[in-house]
Amino acid sequence: MSGRLVIVGLGPGAPGLLTHDAEAALAGASDILGYGPYLARLSPLPGQRLHASGNRQELDRARAALGLAASGKNVALVSGGDSGVFAMASAVFEAIENGEAAWRALDVEVIPGITAMLAASARLGAPLGHDFCAISLSDNLKPWSLVENRLRHAALGDFVIALYNPASRARPWQLGAAFDLLRGILPPTVPVAFAQAISRPEERIEIFSLATADPERADMRTLVIIGARASRLIARPALIERPAARPWLYTPRRASSA
Amino acid sequence: MSGRLVIVGLGPGAPGLLTHDAEAALAGASDILGYGPYLARLSPLPGQRLHASGNRQELDRARAALGLAASGKNVALVSGGDSGVFAMASAVFEAIENGEAAWRALDVEVIPGITAMLAASARLGAPLGHDFCAISLSDNLKPWSLVENRLRHAALGDFVIALYNPASRARPWQLGAAFDLLRGILPPTVPVAFAQAISRPEERIEIFSLATADPERADMRTLVIIGARASRLIARPALIERPAARPWLYTPRRASSA
Repeated sequence: MSGRLVIVGLGPGAPGLLTHDAEAALAGASDILGYGPYLARLSPLPGQRLHASGNRQELDRARAALGLAASGKNVALVSGGDSGVFAMASAVFEAIENGEAAWRALDVEVIPGITAMLAASARLGAPLGHDFCAISLSDNLKPWSLVENRLRHAALGDFVIALYNPASRARPWQLGAAFDLLRGILPPTVPVAFAQAISRPEERIEIFSLATADPERADMRTLVIIGARASRLIARPALIERPAARPWLYTPRRASSA
Repeated sequence: MSGRLVIVGLGPGAPGLLTHDAEAALAGASDILGYGPYLARLSPLPGQRLHASGNRQELDRARAALGLAASGKNVALVSGGDSGVFAMASAVFEAIENGEAAWRALDVEVIPGITAMLAASARLGAPLGHDFCAISLSDNLKPWSLVENRLRHAALGDFVIALYNPASRARPWQLGAAFDLLRGILPPTVPVAFAQAISRPEERIEIFSLATADPERADMRTLVIIGARASRLIARPALIERPAARPWLYTPRRASSA
């Protein structure tokens, strides 16, 4: 069995945020699998086969990638962001654990990528400047009560919170419910940032307070960052060449109380 | 004022894990500031000035970078990993907030990088496969009681936990104390991975259970990942070309109880 599988994080979208290792892995693949819009970002080389699949078919896609690798192909399986963060890497190992014994002998490599939380943080300032957590608001694979429990402990622990998958057409109410829960624990002044399609042409950033955050402003392409108690904004002066400067959002490194 | 400051994450060490944007930002700088060992990774261009400083001088380094930018230089300030995760970005905004008014008008850009947690996760499998948090164990800038409170909520919320700065010569006991606290909440079988100097020549990975994790194995270059209750190992067969395969560590996407 000489095939291999490399699981590649493509980053948030801009080609400049791809790593060299990710590019090399893509260039060396005979077959590239992924969700259609991620494959659309690539410029395949002559002879490379692209296999697009739908958004909710992670486990099937993982099995297809493993099967191709087991048949001797050099397979790349792509995710947006980092493939280990709410993306394909976990689905692949789940497929291996429950799949053919031969898959455990495969050469599997994971290439990290810039996950949405890091790209959003960089655009905003330094909101993750201290201890933080990442929670997927999708309740497709976990009960909502578990999401609530994690939100509660994240707020009680005063973590900065990055919310992945805050909303979609099929999950319209979860972000509002999360804000309601957090409003019962955190001060209303805590900053909340909506970072949409970071590094892509349709990028949009909005900053609210927890009291005023409007869940309707989020969609599938949005990452939401909810500050810790110490997170703060730095106002910036208007300049002729930059009349409407967004404030910087950051969380100080220093913290005083438990 | 025509100078600018770009804060660049260099990733975990291997040049292949640098992004194109990070390289371009470095290439465009007249002056590059950073902790000595990070600057040692770079190959400066003719005419570029490197300004090395010590590990604990973040705020002084941030002020120096802002001062140079305000004087018209094109300044790059480098961090290992991602500069927004326990690194220089937060120190820069702290310096801006408390510094000269002119600094707020500066052009400041943050370029994200592959933080240690993502690099370690990729090497291990997919340990961050579900909700997770990142905690710095350093109590240089926060009281230990706050670290304890965050560890407790992270465990009660069943987050995968990535521990940055687990140990140093000046902070020898904190990781042992963290394990002791977590052993009171989490099952003894939870996997614990020590990922040291990932992607660099001296890379070393060790996997323990929470019951057997030895804090003495960690140092300044180590990232520690403590699994959630569902995190698991996948054993791999020994092959002739790979006699001692490390098991994969992953956290399933699916979760059932709160």
